[in-house]
Amino acid sequence: MTQRSGHLSLGAFLYPSGHHIAAWRHPEAQADGGIDFRFYADLARAAEAAKFDLIFLADGVGTRGDNVEVLSRVAHSYQAQFEPLTLLSALSAVTERIGLVATASTSFNEPYHVARKFASLDHLSGGRAGWNVVTTGNEHEARNFNLDKHYAHADRYARAREFVDVVTGLWNSWEDDAFLRDKERGLYYDADKRHVLHHRGEFFKVQGPLSVSRTPQGHPVVVQAGSSEAGKELAARSGEVVFTAQQTLEEAVAFYADLKGRLARYGRTHDDLRVMPGVFPVVGASEAEAREKFEQLQELIDPVVGLSLLSTIAGGVDLSKYPLDGPIPDLPETNGTKSRQQLVIDLARRENLTIRQLYQRVAGARGHWQLVGTAAQIADELEERFRHYGADGYNIMAPYLPGGLHDFIAHVIPELRRRGLYRTEYTGTTLREHLGLKRPAHPAAVVPQPALQPA
Amino acid sequence: MTQRSGHLSLGAFLYPSGHHIAAWRHPEAQADGGIDFRFYADLARAAEAAKFDLIFLADGVGTRGDNVEVLSRVAHSYQAQFEPLTLLSALSAVTERIGLVATASTSFNEPYHVARKFASLDHLSGGRAGWNVVTTGNEHEARNFNLDKHYAHADRYARAREFVDVVTGLWNSWEDDAFLRDKERGLYYDADKRHVLHHRGEFFKVQGPLSVSRTPQGHPVVVQAGSSEAGKELAARSGEVVFTAQQTLEEAVAFYADLKGRLARYGRTHDDLRVMPGVFPVVGASEAEAREKFEQLQELIDPVVGLSLLSTIAGGVDLSKYPLDGPIPDLPETNGTKSRQQLVIDLARRENLTIRQLYQRVAGARGHWQLVGTAAQIADELEERFRHYGADGYNIMAPYLPGGLHDFIAHVIPELRRRGLYRTEYTGTTLREHLGLKRPAHPAAVVPQPALQPA
Repeated sequence: MTQRSGHLSLGAFLYPSGHHIAAWRHPEAQADGGIDFRFYADLARAAEAAKFDLIFLADGVGTRGDNVEVLSRVAHSYQAQFEPLTLLSALSAVTERIGLVATASTSFNEPYHVARKFASLDHLSGGRAGWNVVTTGNEHEARNFNLDKHYAHADRYARAREFVDVVTGLWNSWEDDAFLRDKERGLYYDADKRHVLHHRGEFFKVQGPLSVSRTPQGHPVVVQAGSSEAGKELAARSGEVVFTAQQTLEEAVAFYADLKGRLARYGRTHDDLRVMPGVFPVVGASEAEAREKFEQLQELIDPVVGLSLLSTIAGGVDLSKYPLDGPIPDLPETNGTKSRQQLVIDLARRENLTIRQLYQRVAGARGHWQLVGTAAQIADELEERFRHYGADGYNIMAPYLPGGLHDFIAHVIPELRRRGLYRTEYTGTTLREHLGLKRPAHPAAVVPQPALQPA
Repeated sequence: MTQRSGHLSLGAFLYPSGHHIAAWRHPEAQADGGIDFRFYADLARAAEAAKFDLIFLADGVGTRGDNVEVLSRVAHSYQAQFEPLTLLSALSAVTERIGLVATASTSFNEPYHVARKFASLDHLSGGRAGWNVVTTGNEHEARNFNLDKHYAHADRYARAREFVDVVTGLWNSWEDDAFLRDKERGLYYDADKRHVLHHRGEFFKVQGPLSVSRTPQGHPVVVQAGSSEAGKELAARSGEVVFTAQQTLEEAVAFYADLKGRLARYGRTHDDLRVMPGVFPVVGASEAEAREKFEQLQELIDPVVGLSLLSTIAGGVDLSKYPLDGPIPDLPETNGTKSRQQLVIDLARRENLTIRQLYQRVAGARGHWQLVGTAAQIADELEERFRHYGADGYNIMAPYLPGGLHDFIAHVIPELRRRGLYRTEYTGTTLREHLGLKRPAHPAAVVPQPALQPA
């Protein structure tokens, strides 16, 4: 297998209090982090000082679940936290270089609003915005938007495809040099460089133009987070960063090759997309210390919460009727997040886990890749997956915050730098430059190339 | 008439380049202000240093009009500017005390998104957010949101009423002390203090709860900007600040009395609502210098732009077929912004203006109250209207920016202070405290009062 060189990319995935389900109860976690701007500002500045490519915010437009016994015992699930675009906009004013990526669902939004807000953020931040495109398979969210049920999986992706096309089209409403602002002639812009979209599709009718000029990055970086078949195809078509979850090197390499292999049919190359799986790292001075740190968190999980979390990750299936210490049952296919369900079930089968062991397992990394060990051990794993083309970088999901991110920065990043795998300074100013993604030319500025003739 | 005492409120209405239609062409205006964060940050900090109550941003979700000959000659009309909520969020991080008010239309938004973003801004800013509720009577905006036509006037207000109810309901999803974050017991919140809305109305079905805890101000300040009959009724029912436009003292006093008189039927008092009309001030060292400054701007108006602006303000009616130097014709009632149309026509009739004179007149203040003179003359007018209960304060619409706001701060504010009409320091930290508005109690915390018995 080819040994690759170069730098890997790093994102800091910022949750209220941390990624672990019991994070908020940890003595060193900030329990009200979700709603404290200072908490996020300090984390974003720490990640920037460590030269992370980006910070990353998840999103949901409704509480995940309706069991108040469970919900009242967790800090996640969208109950008391900032809305991501307002938060990232505020963070843009207290940071200078780090990329700012927020999730926005295509299921319960309008493309004009999404295009406009991310374009605005790209201007506010001087070219640091990224949009993580997701579809929503959650009826609790649907019920906040005039619907009793969420869309079926296929419809969600058809809508998402068209949504992304409309957003991208709106981002091209103006050529880069459209605005002249010629005070003498009284000409604010060159009307020939204004492009009205006039979109009329299956799901949307959107006229345009967008009320925001072309952004510093051409357009914000498009991130894609689904790993189902439809999700991978959407990523190959439009994604520039893919956020994903694989457990083993083999799975990661297969996913990576599959995804990059799909790019050519959309006229894209391997360099047009960065694969950045989530990683849940617990760092210790020794492996034993790391395991102890991890166990300290695991012991804080309320069984009611753990079981409910497993249910959510495994596609909404209720496992409370099965014996906790028995094997995971055969599960019917649901309308939820398919790929996550399969990944979790594969994990249980492979390691012969009981339901209890499985919920403890996913409660930690919540379906993501879990690394518990010394900085060198964690760097070994990250290096191996990177060098074998299983990833182009990682989204770091700190177990608890702020301490967990500081641990990674203090111990793992120096290891990565010693191995020549990570930058010591930013070389660019935009998120695209950090990630090595090219700035998209405006369609009107693309000169068609003559077809190559055989020599 | 009663002579009142106390302080008036001041808002800084921030436009790209300034309020005057030709502002961007002024030698001292920043032509690309609409998309430069530094421009807004400097203005917000200047307004805060001058102890303004708030800054205020208008909004539209589409270009105003489709005549590119006109549009390519103006800096307004939502072509190249920040989206207000992202901009205010960024400004919240570079200011400490000033209120942050943004417009969001009820016509092409979902109440859950609006409730969430403003609640998030209220937390980000430590209690400085305000939502300016408007309805949209603009088909160009409708066409960005799957609609070919905008809603009829009556429907728009019925939708707006329900929209405001849903937003307010969502803001009360959590009692002030719902979140315990008790690490020892593992209890993140008290489930009895969580209130699920379960709204099912004519226009919206929204379950809730909101994903944001109750905000520092209880909820963001609700601002209302329509002055039609339906708009006044909505303001009396839910508005806490009213942004309006009256030309004369008599009109202002009548509007003020009418609006405050409507409060009682909703169980509200005069102190629950602040009336803050827009003012367009051109300040000079002498009256002659002020007039000259004003004329300099007026001369920069392209006639095509002026005529088009008049058309927009007068309810979408096309006046290009009438003689420019003739009187304003009788206009049919349209589906546009009724109250503005009537205000403009009343002005033309009263002063016997031609179409050309009228467009020059509204091109300056764009339908708002225009004051051209020395600081003392402007302060006289502001004082008179305040003392006679024609206004509780003003939204200052600087003719060009940043210079026009600096003029007002340097010359008019000291005049107001000498008269005891304006603060020299903030006494509170939230927008409500600046405006003297009480913090709304959570409905669950309101103890019903026994009915008063006659003595």
